[in-house]
Amino acid sequence: MEQYSIKEKDFRIESDSIGTREVPKDAYYGVQTLRAVENFKITGLKIHKEFINSLAEIKMASAITNGEVGLLSKNIEKAIVRACDEIVSGALHEEYITDPIQGGAGTSMNMNANEVIANRAIEILGGEKGDYSIVHPNDHVNMGQSTNDVIPTAGKITALRLLPKALNKLKELYEALKAKSEEFDDVIKMGRTQMQDAVPIRLGQEFGAYSAVVNRDIKRIEKSMEVLKVVNMGATAIGTGINADKQYEEKIVPNLNTVTGLNLKQSENLVDGTQNVDGFVEVSSAIKTCAVSLSKIANDLRLMSSGPKTGFGEINLPPKQNGSSIMPGKVNPVIPEVVNQVAFNIIGNDMTITMAAEAGQLELNAFEPVIFYKLFESIETLTNGVDTFINNCILGITANKNRCKDLVENSVGIVTALCPYVGYKESARIAKIAMKTGEPVREIILKLGILDEEQLNEVLDTKAMTEPGISAKQLII
Amino acid sequence: MEQYSIKEKDFRIESDSIGTREVPKDAYYGVQTLRAVENFKITGLKIHKEFINSLAEIKMASAITNGEVGLLSKNIEKAIVRACDEIVSGALHEEYITDPIQGGAGTSMNMNANEVIANRAIEILGGEKGDYSIVHPNDHVNMGQSTNDVIPTAGKITALRLLPKALNKLKELYEALKAKSEEFDDVIKMGRTQMQDAVPIRLGQEFGAYSAVVNRDIKRIEKSMEVLKVVNMGATAIGTGINADKQYEEKIVPNLNTVTGLNLKQSENLVDGTQNVDGFVEVSSAIKTCAVSLSKIANDLRLMSSGPKTGFGEINLPPKQNGSSIMPGKVNPVIPEVVNQVAFNIIGNDMTITMAAEAGQLELNAFEPVIFYKLFESIETLTNGVDTFINNCILGITANKNRCKDLVENSVGIVTALCPYVGYKESARIAKIAMKTGEPVREIILKLGILDEEQLNEVLDTKAMTEPGISAKQLII
Amino acid sequence: MEQYSIKEKDFRIESDSIGTREVPKDAYYGVQTLRAVENFKITGLKIHKEFINSLAEIKMASAITNGEVGLLSKNIEKAIVRACDEIVSGALHEEYITDPIQGGAGTSMNMNANEVIANRAIEILGGEKGDYSIVHPNDHVNMGQSTNDVIPTAGKITALRLLPKALNKLKELYEALKAKSEEFDDVIKMGRTQMQDAVPIRLGQEFGAYSAVVNRDIKRIEKSMEVLKVVNMGATAIGTGINADKQYEEKIVPNLNTVTGLNLKQSENLVDGTQNVDGFVEVSSAIKTCAVSLSKIANDLRLMSSGPKTGFGEINLPPKQNGSSIMPGKVNPVIPEVVNQVAFNIIGNDMTITMAAEAGQLELNAFEPVIFYKLFESIETLTNGVDTFINNCILGITANKNRCKDLVENSVGIVTALCPYVGYKESARIAKIAMKTGEPVREIILKLGILDEEQLNEVLDTKAMTEPGISAKQLII
Amino acid sequence: MEQYSIKEKDFRIESDSIGTREVPKDAYYGVQTLRAVENFKITGLKIHKEFINSLAEIKMASAITNGEVGLLSKNIEKAIVRACDEIVSGALHEEYITDPIQGGAGTSMNMNANEVIANRAIEILGGEKGDYSIVHPNDHVNMGQSTNDVIPTAGKITALRLLPKALNKLKELYEALKAKSEEFDDVIKMGRTQMQDAVPIRLGQEFGAYSAVVNRDIKRIEKSMEVLKVVNMGATAIGTGINADKQYEEKIVPNLNTVTGLNLKQSENLVDGTQNVDGFVEVSSAIKTCAVSLSKIANDLRLMSSGPKTGFGEINLPPKQNGSSIMPGKVNPVIPEVVNQVAFNIIGNDMTITMAAEAGQLELNAFEPVIFYKLFESIETLTNGVDTFINNCILGITANKNRCKDLVENSVGIVTALCPYVGYKESARIAKIAMKTGEPVREIILKLGILDEEQLNEVLDTKAMTEPGISAKQLII
Repeated sequence: MEQYSIKEKDFRIESDSIGTREVPKDAYYGVQTLRAVENFKITGLKIHKEFINSLAEIKMASAITNGEVGLLSKNIEKAIVRACDEIVSGALHEEYITDPIQGGAGTSMNMNANEVIANRAIEILGGEKGDYSIVHPNDHVNMGQSTNDVIPTAGKITALRLLPKALNKLKELYEALKAKSEEFDDVIKMGRTQMQDAVPIRLGQEFGAYSAVVNRDIKRIEKSMEVLKVVNMGATAIGTGINADKQYEEKIVPNLNTVTGLNLKQSENLVDGTQNVDGFVEVSSAIKTCAVSLSKIANDLRLMSSGPKTGFGEINLPPKQNGSSIMPGKVNPVIPEVVNQVAFNIIGNDMTITMAAEAGQLELNAFEPVIFYKLFESIETLTNGVDTFINNCILGITANKNRCKDLVENSVGIVTALCPYVGYKESARIAKIAMKTGEPVREIILKLGILDEEQLNEVLDTKAMTEPGISAKQLII
Repeated sequence: MEQYSIKEKDFRIESDSIGTREVPKDAYYGVQTLRAVENFKITGLKIHKEFINSLAEIKMASAITNGEVGLLSKNIEKAIVRACDEIVSGALHEEYITDPIQGGAGTSMNMNANEVIANRAIEILGGEKGDYSIVHPNDHVNMGQSTNDVIPTAGKITALRLLPKALNKLKELYEALKAKSEEFDDVIKMGRTQMQDAVPIRLGQEFGAYSAVVNRDIKRIEKSMEVLKVVNMGATAIGTGINADKQYEEKIVPNLNTVTGLNLKQSENLVDGTQNVDGFVEVSSAIKTCAVSLSKIANDLRLMSSGPKTGFGEINLPPKQNGSSIMPGKVNPVIPEVVNQVAFNIIGNDMTITMAAEAGQLELNAFEPVIFYKLFESIETLTNGVDTFINNCILGITANKNRCKDLVENSVGIVTALCPYVGYKESARIAKIAMKTGEPVREIILKLGILDEEQLNEVLDTKAMTEPGISAKQLII
Repeated sequence: MEQYSIKEKDFRIESDSIGTREVPKDAYYGVQTLRAVENFKITGLKIHKEFINSLAEIKMASAITNGEVGLLSKNIEKAIVRACDEIVSGALHEEYITDPIQGGAGTSMNMNANEVIANRAIEILGGEKGDYSIVHPNDHVNMGQSTNDVIPTAGKITALRLLPKALNKLKELYEALKAKSEEFDDVIKMGRTQMQDAVPIRLGQEFGAYSAVVNRDIKRIEKSMEVLKVVNMGATAIGTGINADKQYEEKIVPNLNTVTGLNLKQSENLVDGTQNVDGFVEVSSAIKTCAVSLSKIANDLRLMSSGPKTGFGEINLPPKQNGSSIMPGKVNPVIPEVVNQVAFNIIGNDMTITMAAEAGQLELNAFEPVIFYKLFESIETLTNGVDTFINNCILGITANKNRCKDLVENSVGIVTALCPYVGYKESARIAKIAMKTGEPVREIILKLGILDEEQLNEVLDTKAMTEPGISAKQLII
Repeated sequence: MEQYSIKEKDFRIESDSIGTREVPKDAYYGVQTLRAVENFKITGLKIHKEFINSLAEIKMASAITNGEVGLLSKNIEKAIVRACDEIVSGALHEEYITDPIQGGAGTSMNMNANEVIANRAIEILGGEKGDYSIVHPNDHVNMGQSTNDVIPTAGKITALRLLPKALNKLKELYEALKAKSEEFDDVIKMGRTQMQDAVPIRLGQEFGAYSAVVNRDIKRIEKSMEVLKVVNMGATAIGTGINADKQYEEKIVPNLNTVTGLNLKQSENLVDGTQNVDGFVEVSSAIKTCAVSLSKIANDLRLMSSGPKTGFGEINLPPKQNGSSIMPGKVNPVIPEVVNQVAFNIIGNDMTITMAAEAGQLELNAFEPVIFYKLFESIETLTNGVDTFINNCILGITANKNRCKDLVENSVGIVTALCPYVGYKESARIAKIAMKTGEPVREIILKLGILDEEQLNEVLDTKAMTEPGISAKQLII
């Protein structure tokens, strides 16, 4: 911040309860923002762009409401609304300079918004930045509000804006997996449980299972979003609505819906709505559960594509980059690997969010900033991770049909299909012989005279093994 | 296990694919159970009683179904059904001796059930334990099934049996908090944010907020139970239904519903239903979120009851035991403290469940045993923790009404109510004077001539401060 | 507890600050223990046997010290010492009936010990149980102590008793892995990175790496034990040593060392030693890190033994039990799987311990009970998991030497060895041809005339590839 | 990346195993970096500046070593060394454009470094960027190396550079706490356990305990750094040292020490050193344990400074910013709150690191990028959080000595000091009377004739209560 120590005339003087302080003359933010910047140099990052917009939308809706109620003069209302409109259109984002990890339950983010909007509104009204007699950050921009209703509401709006992007990507992923499921419907491969040969399955069924769990994750995240739609605007400091006009309280959420186009509801219990952040834990949990599913799919793809020569080699992931700085020709499953890492990150973030939520005390959770920082990171890295998963991996997967077939025919696991005819013990005996001698299961059965060729063709039809069986009683053995 | 090495005649010989092995003659379990006991001496505990019952119910429904389909003779069916019935009634539970943490995706639990049921059915049919030619653990008791559909289904049934107990307790807690909310509706106390005096609130509103979040947690857990009702019976080994008769597959879930009285549905995608355990993660997450809420409430109660002389002293928790071995007369908030610990335990369990879920590979999650172990512990410690929370704490809480009143009147935070009349800056100035001089806010305002007595009575009415305000414009100042 | 509601004469009456209460006449525990049992029905389990012993050792050392200082009469001292001695020898353990998860920072565990020891000492002195005028649980057994120094010290002693068992098992594991490393020193196999063929490695090197990380884990756990040796006996209630005689304070730890045979040190700052539980977090972290290593090894073993026909098939784990209830002949890696689950459990426990530690407030951490419950479970499941890992898995692993050799020779990864001679780009070209045509790398090089047979023998010596190379400059190409 | 789509002449063409691709003509990075950018758009962030330097140092040391061994011509060596030197001096950092979360075990970071250094070296040698016949990213810059030894080594060097900054801050914190401990040595206040009044303590003792645990955390982190000093340079792809000249292997670490000034050691087992990342888990665990300690201290400060009127009010934190947007005059403990959030973040990061470490497979851990991303974030937010903790909080804390004194004298807890004289039961009775009547403990004792004034002055000396007591036997009562 050395730039504003050069010349006295480059500054204006502002004051807060701590004292006076120089503020860069051209800055839209004010003294309270600067204090926060000095107090919280933690990550070196800035708050989320979408969060800046959400704050502006809330301030706009509040100004409109206060105008309607008659508490705010029309010209101040209009100036605030126009300033907010500009911010939502992308202006002044560089004036939001507080760290996403900050003490104070987001007071600094809220005051940063109040100051920027006030100064822009002052300008609009022809004043000089810093002349808060024209538009005051607290008395006008923050009128009827408190950090403690503004910040959780902004957090919810932001999440509601970011989540649909993640959901769209997850839906694309669902479609991509489903398409692969159809494409690979005729690829019979060995099913494995506990890393050991089990019984045949179709590769399409694998991808069908992946698409099914992703679909459930979509539903789960959508369901969790309901809780985000309940906001506590009107709560002011602690949910009792102190200093909020009764009319304001009735109108603020409808007005916020007009501004945002969202379908928000006001919490029926504003004290609850102000102190409890369980909704964010719920959403984070749903995202975490999705991360678990994606990581499992990524693990499977890495397993099935292991090789090219000494692994499972059942599928090929599209090569995306040189795999190694030392091993020529090596291509690695880098996309599933990044999905794994995104998942691990989301799971860790969920733990941070859980702890921060648990630490709330009495009328407020003072740890919302880190909850938002991690939640937004989780949503966005999920969105981005899924995007590359689809486009750089799933869509380009091909099957090694012959390899899959060879493995099935070479396996011993197909002996399972014998159980309904000869029992578990006898089947186990055949399996043991096959393992010991290396002879194909089919040969052994014929040699031992257990089934004849025709029966065997029916019983050992690997395609048939991938669906529920015909009844054993229909076969005479 | 030294007790069964005494005399040869005390044993019977059983065999599996590993070889032969002595089994105590009187044991209902068999060789496979014994192998598991030797392989998995991990926690020293046994699997959950309710899980034993769930397994018996599944085996019963399967026997009935296989009987209907004509694959199982009526007398074997009846013997199996009777054996299962006895187990559900509490018999033979001591024969289930495998550790809750076990390798093998629960094969050992399933085989333990198969062996116990087979041997009891053999007895019923007049045979000798171990004579599996009469009733075979795999061929008859496990007919049409696999560990991989039986175990996750049993896990879901068990959770569906345990969760309503937790929910009942949570509903009791909700009612208790709501009753306290009404009882304390007229206790005006200081609200605090970030551990600092904020503005007045009624103690009833505090408890109302607690009841509201608990109510949301109830809904959240209930919602999460839906996913548990979808089971994969009929999937057999890997979801392809290998070796399961088509008719069996259609009838097994309806029959299981008749046996259990639950409203289970068969998974539309049995491959998915067999390999994905996201449902358990979802339920654990909902419980975790509830744990966060409860821990926050417990923390608040410990704060508000801090004292008796040097803390907040706003409420009294019922004394439940001597608080100290050295400090006479000390009474501690032991019940909220145990609720905190239950919460920390549940949150750690959720992490274990998350990792175990993520580790699933291909057609199966081999780590279901630890998922169940931790999930059941979470549900039961939640149930028990909430029970003691209600009965040994919440119901007996009393308010120190006068102390609460004194604190409010002594506080500076009430200056907030001045903002709509004199603005943020002027209010802050009064607050500063009050803090510095220790003079009551009311006196200062009068002395400075800001408001007259009548106005002050209206503006500084602490009861009124606990609800949204009348409009500032209605007051002429 | 229905047994003590039968007849009035079966009870004695005891009282505490809550009031009077019937206590079973024969019980060695007293009223405070019973209150705790009623307040904390959480897990249904009891506190750890070793913890009971640790408490008895502390009480013994305290009685001896108080005797030496002259605060305790010789006959009371001797009676307490004898009672403690009996308990350490295994007596009266069934009288310790409080739940491991309990509110009150362990006051109930401590009072349970005080009551049992007092009553047994009373008996020894010829009195009737409950006649605390002879030996008083607080004034005599707890003399010079507080829950707040006794409980953390007992926790440390218990951990110091349990950890060496875990370390012994880890050392056994280290030896077993090292032995395998030597046994498999000549098995050349394909190395894999990111699940893709890399360059050759010897199976012995794999096991050597496993042994190395286990060795580091041993060191790490040993190092973490140092912090456990620093105890806060003499701290009494909050570390200020209130009510502890100065001489007592100097003698208690030396006497405790005599009793326990441990080399404990008294904390230099008893206030710190009473409120901070970072030592337990450190130990849990070391165990967690070890769990990560073990889980990684277990994963590798499951990968390398995948098959038998359609996986890597490089090693065989000893078959320990039937792998499936439906698939005959299937043998699963159940032992590595249980090691994974132990690891997930430990990692979750570490999270619980972390949260409980973070929740400490001011002079005490009230959440030590859950810390101990989880820490002891972590240590013991680690011990047990490693035991079965060694004896039921590692020792019996065999290598499929030919399979390993075939895979290496069939691979393309060996092309890496060409880089120093022909460069990365040319090597990549050869790799591509090999992948496309399926022709062996060696043939392609010869055909393209890049190296002659003799050079190839040197360059493509797979054994040589498993060690740092001779210098490229020594070869003329 | 729209800037390089303008004109054809603005590009050069590069190729890798995926095919050819346009690269911005002026870019120092090459095709492999660009592939990575396209594959991994996850966080939108870039890799750590210090990591870029570490990579350059490794490349420099390798070039020097390869030069010494005679594998690299002097002019290429010199060009590489100069390029690296420039980078370490801060040049070309903007050319490192890969995301910190990336698939491929860091291959993309390594290739980004190789490409930037190669192109800068080419320039130095008078060539055109992209003309890899002059200096090749793989053959020259990466000579004797692999991603799999370079990346973990760079991660360790980076951590070893960042950790001392954190340690310096922690040492400053230790000093600050210790100074406060001395400053507050005469402030007698009420000690509290479980949020309930216990016995007196001096405020200096509180801060002394904080300084003690911080000191232990410093030691713990320092200890954990030892494991970071063991690097696997010379391991190349999988630890077998393939393609690394034996002389190179011996010289690389000494040369790296010359370049870095660090005291690194080469891993005795390079296979182990390449696949195991337990060292990072150990360091993260130590940081996590420190975070737990700091969060506990922050919680305590928030408790003790609660008020100003309705809380504990024992200390004052320096006011750093307006506390509220709605409540005038409110000052909140924003600095401790941000420390809490930093702690929650670190604990969540530790979970991510744990999972990523557990997921390593066979010869490599492919998830190192997310491990580094989170570890570096943990270290830096710790450093920054501690910095603001010291300067904006600890140093300015003041004590409310009179308030502390009043609370102690008003308390009942001092009755504990009576126990050695009158026993636990009698003391409890006095406490009960005091609680009921509100009469001071001292008055009650006198009135009941238990002790006389002189005795009382000795027994109830609150200062004396904060140290171990004189022996009871010295007092005649």
